[in-house]
Amino acid sequence: MRTVVTGGTGYIGGRLVAELVGRGWPVAVVVIPGDPAPLPDGVARIEDPGTAPGLADSLAGFQPDAVMHLAAAQDLTDTLEASDLLVTANLGFGARVLAAARSAGVRALVAAGTYSAHADGDAGYAPQTLYAATKQAFGALAGHYRRNTTLATVVLELSDTYGPGDHRPKFLNLIAAAATSGEVLGASPGEQVIRPLHTDDIVAAFIYAASALVEGRELGAVYSVAGPDAVTLRELVAVFERATGTSVPVEWGARPYRSGEIMVPWTGETLPGWAPSIGLTEGLAAVYGAGVEG
Amino acid sequence: MRTVVTGGTGYIGGRLVAELVGRGWPVAVVVIPGDPAPLPDGVARIEDPGTAPGLADSLAGFQPDAVMHLAAAQDLTDTLEASDLLVTANLGFGARVLAAARSAGVRALVAAGTYSAHADGDAGYAPQTLYAATKQAFGALAGHYRRNTTLATVVLELSDTYGPGDHRPKFLNLIAAAATSGEVLGASPGEQVIRPLHTDDIVAAFIYAASALVEGRELGAVYSVAGPDAVTLRELVAVFERATGTSVPVEWGARPYRSGEIMVPWTGETLPGWAPSIGLTEGLAAVYGAGVEG
Repeated sequence: MRTVVTGGTGYIGGRLVAELVGRGWPVAVVVIPGDPAPLPDGVARIEDPGTAPGLADSLAGFQPDAVMHLAAAQDLTDTLEASDLLVTANLGFGARVLAAARSAGVRALVAAGTYSAHADGDAGYAPQTLYAATKQAFGALAGHYRRNTTLATVVLELSDTYGPGDHRPKFLNLIAAAATSGEVLGASPGEQVIRPLHTDDIVAAFIYAASALVEGRELGAVYSVAGPDAVTLRELVAVFERATGTSVPVEWGARPYRSGEIMVPWTGETLPGWAPSIGLTEGLAAVYGAGVEG
Repeated sequence: MRTVVTGGTGYIGGRLVAELVGRGWPVAVVVIPGDPAPLPDGVARIEDPGTAPGLADSLAGFQPDAVMHLAAAQDLTDTLEASDLLVTANLGFGARVLAAARSAGVRALVAAGTYSAHADGDAGYAPQTLYAATKQAFGALAGHYRRNTTLATVVLELSDTYGPGDHRPKFLNLIAAAATSGEVLGASPGEQVIRPLHTDDIVAAFIYAASALVEGRELGAVYSVAGPDAVTLRELVAVFERATGTSVPVEWGARPYRSGEIMVPWTGETLPGWAPSIGLTEGLAAVYGAGVEG
């Protein structure tokens, strides 16, 4: 499968590119012009020319079977500047990728969505943030290509993610830092539920979905891709301690819940044929065990 | 009600601006820089500065109570160039209008959607075109503001429209031209159903919805605003002939249905408190009666 990856210089996209390269499959990554991030040997670099006709030409040159669209601006604020950024990156670029993929005769496009489009805890659309709204809006654009063209698309709504080499400022990394430093982590009351999802499972889901579409299987417009275990943050710390043999000093209730906090994440129909393979205890031990042992 | 109108130099937006001005209400129109179209006396002109912070400043200066968002690129093709245009105009500009309206403390935003987002004839999302998909995507962005901010939004999904001074190349105008010239109009088999909606009824719906939101009434995210009578194109010609006292030479079946033709338009829940007031026969007589009489 010849694959184009967007967001391939980001954390999850980078893991996906490494897996594809490891399988010996031809890979190209679409980057913003001037992006200094290196790519693995043998991976083609396509600079986004900023227009759909230009990007279509670039994609046609690579002749991909599938596009895996992970590029996204992840500004979770609600400022005027964030609106411009989110719309340019998540909708302007995303729309170009869709139009160019269709024009280049690509068979399948798999895109990363977010569970935070369902912040009311049911299947309905309820965006937690403008970021989530731009993801939903991308899905609406993809719906045109699914229905009216030969480009098959599917959106995978990802739950909270973690994995090796993930240095994003997420709760799990704050836990790990507290375990190492011994400094007390001031946290919310900690009753909100999350479903941590290992990046290897995400990578598997993208490859599985793209392969299915390229083989001509029909998939729905959107599926959940979520971790195997739903735990409160308090339970997550307990699992982390057991998995890593550490003690994490946390002061629960030291800060309030964030405004708009999702207390119970909604999980819809899971991508058929895929299931998470990495249990939470096992995953945390593998990712955080070594780092906090010594 | 102090009102900002986008698309105010277009056909429907122009009719809306004229009505607001006629009521003596303060109106500003947001235009693309360099738009040569004149505005009625007393209407403020706001040039889109191209960024959300810039547009927010401009809106704050006018202090609107409501924004009526009718601006849209209406390219119904599916070219790469159309994608760039539709996304820039309908999502880039639309997102700026939402962010700026919220920032400027606007209470209500009413936006024009399209029935062609439901091309399968039920409530589900099934975009007839990329144009319809960009309208749906705008609605997803509006959903963030509805849920998470003080800006109330509603999308009015309009059916086919007609009205005085409408010279767009629509079927009704082709009928009128054939009635005047006597030249035979080569048409499809003509069994597709439409619900022609008079622009005066659209204008009333926008003003009604904006007033309701400004007064603090709760409305749903989206409503149908459709004409009173569902007719096939064949029936439409018959009504036209009766209404205008003319004979329209049509060769039905001279051309095939368009690809993706909507045979039965879907009408969802109608904007509560509004109903179309202009019957089809009455409306056609008023709009086309004079033009084809002499």
